[in-house]
Amino acid sequence: MAGNTFGKIFKLTTFGESHGKAIGGIIDGCPAGLEIDFDFIRDELDRRKPGQSALTTQRKESDNVEFLSGIFEGKTTGTPIAFLIWNEDRDSKDYDHLKEVYRPSHADFTFEQKYGVRDHRGGGRSSARETAARVAGGAFAKLLLQREAIKITAFVSQIGNVILNKDYKYFDIKTIESSPVRCPDKDTSDRMVKLIEKVKSEGDTIGGVISCFIQGVPAGLGEPVFDKLQADLAKAMLSINAAKGFEYGSGFRAAQMKGSEHNDLFEKAGDKIVTKTNYSGGIQGGISNGQDIYFRVAFKPVATLMMDQETVNKKGEKVILKGRGRHDVCVVPRAVPIVEAMAALVMADFYLRNEIKI
Amino acid sequence: MAGNTFGKIFKLTTFGESHGKAIGGIIDGCPAGLEIDFDFIRDELDRRKPGQSALTTQRKESDNVEFLSGIFEGKTTGTPIAFLIWNEDRDSKDYDHLKEVYRPSHADFTFEQKYGVRDHRGGGRSSARETAARVAGGAFAKLLLQREAIKITAFVSQIGNVILNKDYKYFDIKTIESSPVRCPDKDTSDRMVKLIEKVKSEGDTIGGVISCFIQGVPAGLGEPVFDKLQADLAKAMLSINAAKGFEYGSGFRAAQMKGSEHNDLFEKAGDKIVTKTNYSGGIQGGISNGQDIYFRVAFKPVATLMMDQETVNKKGEKVILKGRGRHDVCVVPRAVPIVEAMAALVMADFYLRNEIKI
Amino acid sequence: MAGNTFGKIFKLTTFGESHGKAIGGIIDGCPAGLEIDFDFIRDELDRRKPGQSALTTQRKESDNVEFLSGIFEGKTTGTPIAFLIWNEDRDSKDYDHLKEVYRPSHADFTFEQKYGVRDHRGGGRSSARETAARVAGGAFAKLLLQREAIKITAFVSQIGNVILNKDYKYFDIKTIESSPVRCPDKDTSDRMVKLIEKVKSEGDTIGGVISCFIQGVPAGLGEPVFDKLQADLAKAMLSINAAKGFEYGSGFRAAQMKGSEHNDLFEKAGDKIVTKTNYSGGIQGGISNGQDIYFRVAFKPVATLMMDQETVNKKGEKVILKGRGRHDVCVVPRAVPIVEAMAALVMADFYLRNEIKI
Amino acid sequence: MAGNTFGKIFKLTTFGESHGKAIGGIIDGCPAGLEIDFDFIRDELDRRKPGQSALTTQRKESDNVEFLSGIFEGKTTGTPIAFLIWNEDRDSKDYDHLKEVYRPSHADFTFEQKYGVRDHRGGGRSSARETAARVAGGAFAKLLLQREAIKITAFVSQIGNVILNKDYKYFDIKTIESSPVRCPDKDTSDRMVKLIEKVKSEGDTIGGVISCFIQGVPAGLGEPVFDKLQADLAKAMLSINAAKGFEYGSGFRAAQMKGSEHNDLFEKAGDKIVTKTNYSGGIQGGISNGQDIYFRVAFKPVATLMMDQETVNKKGEKVILKGRGRHDVCVVPRAVPIVEAMAALVMADFYLRNEIKI
Repeated sequence: MAGNTFGKIFKLTTFGESHGKAIGGIIDGCPAGLEIDFDFIRDELDRRKPGQSALTTQRKESDNVEFLSGIFEGKTTGTPIAFLIWNEDRDSKDYDHLKEVYRPSHADFTFEQKYGVRDHRGGGRSSARETAARVAGGAFAKLLLQREAIKITAFVSQIGNVILNKDYKYFDIKTIESSPVRCPDKDTSDRMVKLIEKVKSEGDTIGGVISCFIQGVPAGLGEPVFDKLQADLAKAMLSINAAKGFEYGSGFRAAQMKGSEHNDLFEKAGDKIVTKTNYSGGIQGGISNGQDIYFRVAFKPVATLMMDQETVNKKGEKVILKGRGRHDVCVVPRAVPIVEAMAALVMADFYLRNEIKI
Repeated sequence: MAGNTFGKIFKLTTFGESHGKAIGGIIDGCPAGLEIDFDFIRDELDRRKPGQSALTTQRKESDNVEFLSGIFEGKTTGTPIAFLIWNEDRDSKDYDHLKEVYRPSHADFTFEQKYGVRDHRGGGRSSARETAARVAGGAFAKLLLQREAIKITAFVSQIGNVILNKDYKYFDIKTIESSPVRCPDKDTSDRMVKLIEKVKSEGDTIGGVISCFIQGVPAGLGEPVFDKLQADLAKAMLSINAAKGFEYGSGFRAAQMKGSEHNDLFEKAGDKIVTKTNYSGGIQGGISNGQDIYFRVAFKPVATLMMDQETVNKKGEKVILKGRGRHDVCVVPRAVPIVEAMAALVMADFYLRNEIKI
Repeated sequence: MAGNTFGKIFKLTTFGESHGKAIGGIIDGCPAGLEIDFDFIRDELDRRKPGQSALTTQRKESDNVEFLSGIFEGKTTGTPIAFLIWNEDRDSKDYDHLKEVYRPSHADFTFEQKYGVRDHRGGGRSSARETAARVAGGAFAKLLLQREAIKITAFVSQIGNVILNKDYKYFDIKTIESSPVRCPDKDTSDRMVKLIEKVKSEGDTIGGVISCFIQGVPAGLGEPVFDKLQADLAKAMLSINAAKGFEYGSGFRAAQMKGSEHNDLFEKAGDKIVTKTNYSGGIQGGISNGQDIYFRVAFKPVATLMMDQETVNKKGEKVILKGRGRHDVCVVPRAVPIVEAMAALVMADFYLRNEIKI
Repeated sequence: MAGNTFGKIFKLTTFGESHGKAIGGIIDGCPAGLEIDFDFIRDELDRRKPGQSALTTQRKESDNVEFLSGIFEGKTTGTPIAFLIWNEDRDSKDYDHLKEVYRPSHADFTFEQKYGVRDHRGGGRSSARETAARVAGGAFAKLLLQREAIKITAFVSQIGNVILNKDYKYFDIKTIESSPVRCPDKDTSDRMVKLIEKVKSEGDTIGGVISCFIQGVPAGLGEPVFDKLQADLAKAMLSINAAKGFEYGSGFRAAQMKGSEHNDLFEKAGDKIVTKTNYSGGIQGGISNGQDIYFRVAFKPVATLMMDQETVNKKGEKVILKGRGRHDVCVVPRAVPIVEAMAALVMADFYLRNEIKI
């Protein structure tokens, strides 16, 4: 049973291989009457696009989204919104040397084990190119959430051993996009850039962490048992290529804490009930409590290296995989809009899933 | 849209509040002809049961499962397996003082925001008692997986600042259950016990980490995009009460690693293709690669304390919540079978979801 | 992939075999705060119960529903509502003679082909006893719909060749329940009774038709493509044991009609837009138009006869199946509350599925 | 919650409005390795295409399917198959007169009630043009079923009062496609053609019935309770535009039958257990029994007439709707491949849903 659909009410189904004709998707369940800001959608896709700086892959992708349905006179009609992004710059001959080889820590081997066949060109369906469709879908989710004043912001908080140690509250959000690595602290950003350049010169790659916070979420979104808000966020994040870990609120740090430190005491602020601290990360019992939701996602280093690697071919024979092609040294800055898009899909879905009050 | 069902083909739906008549569930999609080992199911539930040692809550629950359907002459029939566990020892008067009060870091406030009403007795639906139904469901999943020689083992690898620093491969699995905290290293286990006793004497609680590994998984389970194997595992784990983080394979450590360190090189071992290292945690591109799957789950400290806490009541007035009742100081040892059960549900589902090969 | 759940938001999952311990179900997705009229639920179940008159099977079933969860202080809490009905009067020895035999037009043979095993006692899961759980679930749906003034009424419009030829508008609804065959026309009802008695005296059984109409449905419920309102009603009805056909509005008669006869012209009535005729059966393009929804469901004769029948056993050997046991001659009158229950489940689901207007 | 996806494992999601840029769909869950016969797919679409004879609408649609993903070197890869059909010949000015008017027995009024907005051009999403995507999806399902020797055949058995009174077994299947109305009996076909011509000359339209039979279905497909094989077939058929009724096996005739007539007695034929008669329509208890599955679907007359009709505009004012445009007099012959496609989607889904035997 295939798994190319995300969401239960606000549903995104994506399709496409990196070197097929096109990638794209269908958004089903977006309410009618939503005004579409096409510039915003293009901007979101541009944020994910390769070639944004010397630090990222120079593969040229125009990533222009073409909408085929579900929009009439600038508004959603309530029917499925199909969109596609044509694949250009796709010389599949570039990949002939991969036809018989399993690249280390890629999905070549596992796809073949699962399906018996695989489209070996550029990773096919397992390519991160698929995430462009997520960003497009997430842009619609963001437009829906904006109406409810729910705002999602992600940034890079770690690359290699360069770690941003300050809380998201102490930054100017607007500086995120001006950093080449999407880190809102100038000094840390500079050190991250330097690290990436060094790693690049070695033909190597490096991992990192993205932090994300969601503001303006009303209390009451989420479900108490299996579909806890944090559970669906975790699934959304771990479904992103290269993601290795997820924590929300106090996260792994909670393991070391005592209840008397960790409990978020309630108090009244104006006519709202709030918590004094927010180790809960805005969620209690799987349901939002009105405080900021925040979480962190760990990413592994890119598996494609500019150096030789030992591996095997289909017959199990030892072969040397040469480093070549155009690839990111660190995918984390470009994954920022993907993290936001997936978070937006989760939040839009829970917003629409919320029970009718009777 | 409620979320009380887990799984797409092997589906578990749970019901029940901690102080209602009963909790239980329905397993739908378990294949026909599976032989049921009722002793095994009872043992699994016993592992989760409170009152197993002086370290855990003394609430008496017999947790006897009664099966109502779907089993005939000791085997599954392919029809829904309904089961229930009657709630005994449920004096709801114990909870009258909580009717108007929001306990810190519990789900009282969020349930009320979501539903308008709540069953205030013992946490109602948000009580960890619900997880007994998961353990029962997971036991069926384990029986199914056993036939395929897939084995799931979890243990406690951290409580507070007491951390087990050795890899799961260096332990004797059999010692897990003989440790009162389910930690397979005698010395670490002893220090954990001491820490819990100390915390208990302070009226406080403490968090921890559970590690889990899955052996015998064939290559090819999982889905490449949204339903990646690790994504569903992450969702499963974050759906457990008090879970705060999930990482698999290299996890958050991957953020600090270079590709040349992290890549798992393929080699041939006998007639199988394996990897020399396993930073991938047995999963590449969302699909199992035949190596061990392993992951870690962080748990926050229990929110119910044996000390006074400030909070507010429904009107937003400041009140003091007195510490009382019978509660775990550290829920992590008892969460071990729950982690295993949720992992088993994920693996059984992916096993059955696997495409027919044509 | 099993199919024991009905509905997408208002979901009913049923379980149980006719001669297992109990049958029952879980309703997930019923909004919180719905006041439960327990007498109403019992009355609904009593309408389906066997032994209501000399015309129906004398199997004694108390059919008392026991609620296990999801209700607190007389109202739904938004969490799953589990309920069960214990099976009494279940002497499985009655069925030993069926262990090796395939009863004609029963599900014995197909269950065995599908599952390899079967619970042969009284039809097991394929027994119409399962529908008691549907009636219980449907009662909750009805309670929800009542708040919106949506009312569902079914009655018997044909048994054998005795046909009620008048439209539902010309009857007094209240007379349905006073007829032993649930036919609101005294004369037709009498003739139906006579026919059933005659058929019974022959040891035979007879089919029939149930008509149903739904009043008070607002315009705008349903979905335009695959989940058309009539499509889900058709599925709901054909999922009832012994149902053989479904038609709504003009139904099969439409095949003989011209567009100029069949089109329902719009007109203004007060401040509402209505149609002059209602061949559309209250649905256009899969979405309710505010007029009455009405449909008919055909039922085959009961397959269990009080006469000898030729059949085969598991080995394919010819055997004679003796007529014995307690069985309905005509199941149609008792299916009336089942038709209503399934219609209520569909309508409650579409009511909750309706998009948030933005 | 939108309903643009059909199927649970073999899933088709469609998109597109009649006068948008394109229509199309995504097939998710088609197994890998299926060889694609592109000519067959084009032929299937040609069967549905308008303009096949003087009897059908002359709207020119090339209906060329463009495949975007999921196929590599002529075979499916197991990933989503996206396809689209560009809309040509779409002069939306043709529809300006419908912007403010509700056409009788069309979905204009109900879409507006549901969504607040509507794409008024040619029916938008409610146009039968959407069914081209179903035929494309169904073609893949047919290719999958062919491998299992499951064959689906539909034909026209009634138009207006011209009724084909012989069973499907007495016809030469090959003659279906040579009849301009897809009726395999030459004489009946001629009378149907004459009737359609007469109705056309009156500016009117006419309804009809399609019969369908499925051969080669192994025993054991289907689910016993809500997802009975006939229930999903009923839903599939009633989801087709203009469908008004569904019956399978004995259908509505069963209402008049006695059990002793209707029961299908088992017997052994060679080494298979078969039934002597087939009133069950190949399904018992929701599960296929190995005999032919057959059913009938009623269609109403096309709602667009070549004559004036009274209706109202958005303000509720009386207006006269002029007959104009290019429309089918009788949609039934063109609906034959749609009935087959929907049946194929159901059968492919149940084939893949069938439980793993352990």
